Amino acid sequence: MHSFFASRPCSLRPHFKAHKTPAIAHRQAAAGCVGFTTATLGEAELLADEGFDDLLIANEICDPTKMQRLADLAGRVALTVAVDSSEAVDLIKGTGVRVVVDINVGMPRCGVAPEGALGVARAAADAGLELVGVMGYEGHATVIEDIAERAKVARASMAILIGVADELRAQGFAIDIVSGGSTLTYDVTGGTEGVTEVQAGSYALMDTEFAKSSPFEEALQCLTTVLSTQGRLAVLDAGLKTMTIDHGNPKLPEDVSADVLYLADEHTSLVVREGFDAKPGERMWLRPSHVDPTVNLHDRLYAFRDERVEEVWPVSGRGYG
Amino acid sequence: MHSFFASRPCSLRPHFKAHKTPAIAHRQAAAGCVGFTTATLGEAELLADEGFDDLLIANEICDPTKMQRLADLAGRVALTVAVDSSEAVDLIKGTGVRVVVDINVGMPRCGVAPEGALGVARAAADAGLELVGVMGYEGHATVIEDIAERAKVARASMAILIGVADELRAQGFAIDIVSGGSTLTYDVTGGTEGVTEVQAGSYALMDTEFAKSSPFEEALQCLTTVLSTQGRLAVLDAGLKTMTIDHGNPKLPEDVSADVLYLADEHTSLVVREGFDAKPGERMWLRPSHVDPTVNLHDRLYAFRDERVEEVWPVSGRGYG
Repeated sequence: MHSFFASRPCSLRPHFKAHKTPAIAHRQAAAGCVGFTTATLGEAELLADEGFDDLLIANEICDPTKMQRLADLAGRVALTVAVDSSEAVDLIKGTGVRVVVDINVGMPRCGVAPEGALGVARAAADAGLELVGVMGYEGHATVIEDIAERAKVARASMAILIGVADELRAQGFAIDIVSGGSTLTYDVTGGTEGVTEVQAGSYALMDTEFAKSSPFEEALQCLTTVLSTQGRLAVLDAGLKTMTIDHGNPKLPEDVSADVLYLADEHTSLVVREGFDAKPGERMWLRPSHVDPTVNLHDRLYAFRDERVEEVWPVSGRGYG
Repeated sequence: MHSFFASRPCSLRPHFKAHKTPAIAHRQAAAGCVGFTTATLGEAELLADEGFDDLLIANEICDPTKMQRLADLAGRVALTVAVDSSEAVDLIKGTGVRVVVDINVGMPRCGVAPEGALGVARAAADAGLELVGVMGYEGHATVIEDIAERAKVARASMAILIGVADELRAQGFAIDIVSGGSTLTYDVTGGTEGVTEVQAGSYALMDTEFAKSSPFEEALQCLTTVLSTQGRLAVLDAGLKTMTIDHGNPKLPEDVSADVLYLADEHTSLVVREGFDAKPGERMWLRPSHVDPTVNLHDRLYAFRDERVEEVWPVSGRGYG
């Protein structure tokens, strides 16, 4: 991922929410990136404590009780925050943050409709906030498995975003940042003329859902212990409190003759096929389906190479913030 | 829940996994219970530290690296562990724990088939482990919404369990404990002659899924902030890292004119109806669909009465263990 962006005018701004792990962020910085993206204020505060000084909170911050923290952080680092309404602008007015206008480029989440972007930009200027760019997340493209179709949708999203940037420039706004996502569209989005930054997070660890149609490999696995084998059923000692299933059940390694049946709080039940011979007490890996909320369940990651643990990395960004 | 069991021969043994919160456990103990149930060794260690001395780990412990911890805990409290195979027996042999034979009463998870119970009981005896009873979890009954049908399935499960208890007694084993679940079957299971203990956890906090067909009321809610309102769409600042969706999306309060569309890591998108007038920065409650893994995402619970926070309770049992 980093080598793709090394030779381009577009920069990589890795999304910290995917791993919440400073040890990984430092490796990403060493591999080259323009700064970091976060989903929460707490993640940005942590990255500032880690010495990173160019941070984009790719999200609206509207909780009135967070404004002093936001102002404090803006006094320490170059901090940019997304806005998509005059109300969001009013809430962060006076914190000293820079802002990007968050544009809805097709996904039903935050972001003003393209035709409303100018109004938000003017509200920001009126509020004395420095407008530095626009962002739009083509998340609706990332769920498309067919690579050609996904690229088409991502291109259409970026065309919307660049159109808004041009419109704002025509109105006199200095739009330096045009920021999109993601791990599954990095080559299309990062290769689009006019896009200046790509927010990608999952590539560092990956999961079964994203790895289905991506050149990046799964690094995240969960080590479990077999609890029970009874007939065609086997049970592992990790469940919903260890891996999330919002992108589907975790998967077993290819060489295990079994399929995941379902997850309970502390169990994963398997239906076994001929050749399954694991016994209670033996170890078994599971491959999570969604890296971000799964890492968020854990206090630390064990970094291993050749079956040997080399380092233990605190997931310091875990928790609400 | 506690008053139901106060007047019966059957005892309540609340399941700590549902809330992982010592402050709630102390309230449960004050309301009367025979001891606590846990899903993990770590939860049992925490409860021992909290002064509780009669603990059932209603799960097999098969991780070879946990055996010293198991032995240490068995030296401090009356500790009972589930076994469902000779392998599970062999692994905990020598730890000094008491055991219950875990019987599969119809749910595809841990538990030996009824016809294998005697073999496991003999393996336990041969290994020098004190066998004190049997347990069986009628989890497949709890997912049945129709109360009469659910009761029928729960009764059938308990009949299997009591049949095994009788068979083991006939072979000379002292079966003092016959333990089943749960919040959704407590009255049937707890009212079945021969069942001595009920493991129920969700009743203390409840969630939208269990509250659909239960006399217990939802106490757990998540306080969010509105981030964005654009046309028919609104977005809240809490998502998959705040509430799990394995039992479905969280629900809005009845008086909010909107429906949950989907959850992302840090967002809940809503489709709003006529009358929805919340603005960015306003607060909005969400009602989680599954209490156990949702509480597990948080480091603390805020206990409030009449919109005033009375206490802050650490979720000390959060994390793997």
